[in-house]
Amino acid sequence: YLSSLDISDFCCVIVYKEKEPLVLVPKLEFLKAKQVSSIRKVISLHNFWQQLKQLVAAKTIGLNFSCISIDEFKRFRQTFPKTRFVDIAVDLDKIRRIKAQEEIRRLRLACSITDEITELCISQFRKFRTEADVMNFIEYETKKLGLTVSFPTIVASGKNAAMPHHATSMQKLQKGFCVIDWGIRYDMYCSDMSRTLYIGKPSEKERALYEKVLQSQQHALDTAKAGMKSADIDKLSRKILGKLNKYFIHSLGHQIGIDVHEGSFRLSSKSKDTIENGMVFTIEPGIYIPNKLGIRIEDTVMVDKKAIPLTKFTKELIVIA
Amino acid sequence: YLSSLDISDFCCVIVYKEKEPLVLVPKLEFLKAKQVSSIRKVISLHNFWQQLKQLVAAKTIGLNFSCISIDEFKRFRQTFPKTRFVDIAVDLDKIRRIKAQEEIRRLRLACSITDEITELCISQFRKFRTEADVMNFIEYETKKLGLTVSFPTIVASGKNAAMPHHATSMQKLQKGFCVIDWGIRYDMYCSDMSRTLYIGKPSEKERALYEKVLQSQQHALDTAKAGMKSADIDKLSRKILGKLNKYFIHSLGHQIGIDVHEGSFRLSSKSKDTIENGMVFTIEPGIYIPNKLGIRIEDTVMVDKKAIPLTKFTKELIVIA
Repeated sequence: YLSSLDISDFCCVIVYKEKEPLVLVPKLEFLKAKQVSSIRKVISLHNFWQQLKQLVAAKTIGLNFSCISIDEFKRFRQTFPKTRFVDIAVDLDKIRRIKAQEEIRRLRLACSITDEITELCISQFRKFRTEADVMNFIEYETKKLGLTVSFPTIVASGKNAAMPHHATSMQKLQKGFCVIDWGIRYDMYCSDMSRTLYIGKPSEKERALYEKVLQSQQHALDTAKAGMKSADIDKLSRKILGKLNKYFIHSLGHQIGIDVHEGSFRLSSKSKDTIENGMVFTIEPGIYIPNKLGIRIEDTVMVDKKAIPLTKFTKELIVIA
Repeated sequence: YLSSLDISDFCCVIVYKEKEPLVLVPKLEFLKAKQVSSIRKVISLHNFWQQLKQLVAAKTIGLNFSCISIDEFKRFRQTFPKTRFVDIAVDLDKIRRIKAQEEIRRLRLACSITDEITELCISQFRKFRTEADVMNFIEYETKKLGLTVSFPTIVASGKNAAMPHHATSMQKLQKGFCVIDWGIRYDMYCSDMSRTLYIGKPSEKERALYEKVLQSQQHALDTAKAGMKSADIDKLSRKILGKLNKYFIHSLGHQIGIDVHEGSFRLSSKSKDTIENGMVFTIEPGIYIPNKLGIRIEDTVMVDKKAIPLTKFTKELIVIA
């Protein structure tokens, strides 16, 4: 996050109080890192603990306690026996909540590419036979652009849609609601969008179910704004669902950024958080009637006073007759 | 690893000294887990620390210190103030090194599917224009089988092949060596294989370079056996490379299983490990001449007295004329 580097191997950012920050990267990644890093000073790793000792002399060192292991912490204490260690997990979490302009730009692009590929997918939907066909189409179009998906694409038709985390199967597309939940990663930043189609001819009752979820989503979207409690938005969306709320078995939304489910911020009844300008999160009510059906409508939104959807694909019920 | 469950969310296995083990899984995963878990007793998570307190009463608790964070450890100590905690990371690492028959079965299947898709890919190679085309073909064929790749497929042609971790690009396939490094995940278990083709007409010198890497790989494969020091195999492969060894900038191989790069076992000059029956690892010498070319030949192998390759696709130099 701090270096803008996408390295799966071990690497380490050091931020000094009164010096330029630096980033330590594996030897194999050094050349690429020099080109891409947002931290100008890039150093090649050879012996981490020895290098760290040379680079750091401080009475207090801040570490991200939520991701450093017990083992690693032991080594820190051995390497710096006289140093005090403090937890900066909460501070990092707070910084990551508020997106900078450059982050918003990438998120915006990720979302609009998601819109476009979804449009293409829907326009060719009749040629798909299985859930996997739909997923393959989406992921193939994504890769054609040199991009990757931000999580394995969910395509859940018929009864499968009643499982929010259904693993897309080789099963033939069933009549009824079909949830498509997917996103891409653009320059490290993720999009996340769900749309629910109907395959076949929906009954009036089914249309009403869809409208209820859409109302809930749209109302949450229209009402969310900076300064509001996130628990209140979650409650509002549930209130609109009325009796259907018992089928809404997850929280209303999650922060998104470099990770699809990012940081500690959630739109949830349990949350004590307040919505702030610059936040980016999802709004995704859903209902899941076991062994019957599932409907979820989800947008990625940013907050600039009010909530502004970054994913903009139509939410009218699309019927594949 | 212990439960055979593929859950990305938080979950926890408890192994008792004198009782049946159990696994705690998120509510959303409960039904699936009951079907798939190799641990029969599956419990749905609601309040982890509270449940843990009810489930565990022991003077000593073993934890994997290499993956539990400082934060989590604090909670453990708060929850069990009188308990002694011991590190079981090394023990777990040792168990995972030696594969059970069922694990070998899955690895074997992963590898033979990798062979088949590689064969298909090579047979149609002339129709690909860019590195991404090759990757897309491979990953599409993988998904058609309902499987996923075990890491993003590397296709590196021309100068790009000089970077071992090249990110497959939209670049047109260049003349010269082209490294394809990829693998699939079958029932959680990974394969990993690299082959190097030649696009165009190789010079005698280029053929000789390829033969040198192949000799190094084949000799390591023929020589590796249970009881041997892993450092010795690494050294042997380098010795055969002769002067080219200066371009061999990574270690000879890594353990593979549920993770592509798994555990602490490596075929490396720095390693103090001994090869044992039941281990599965890669053998992958490579040379990388900056701004010029790269060649890597890699198999996934298992040890049953001697090293037996699980990936079997031909290693003769394939020339795409």
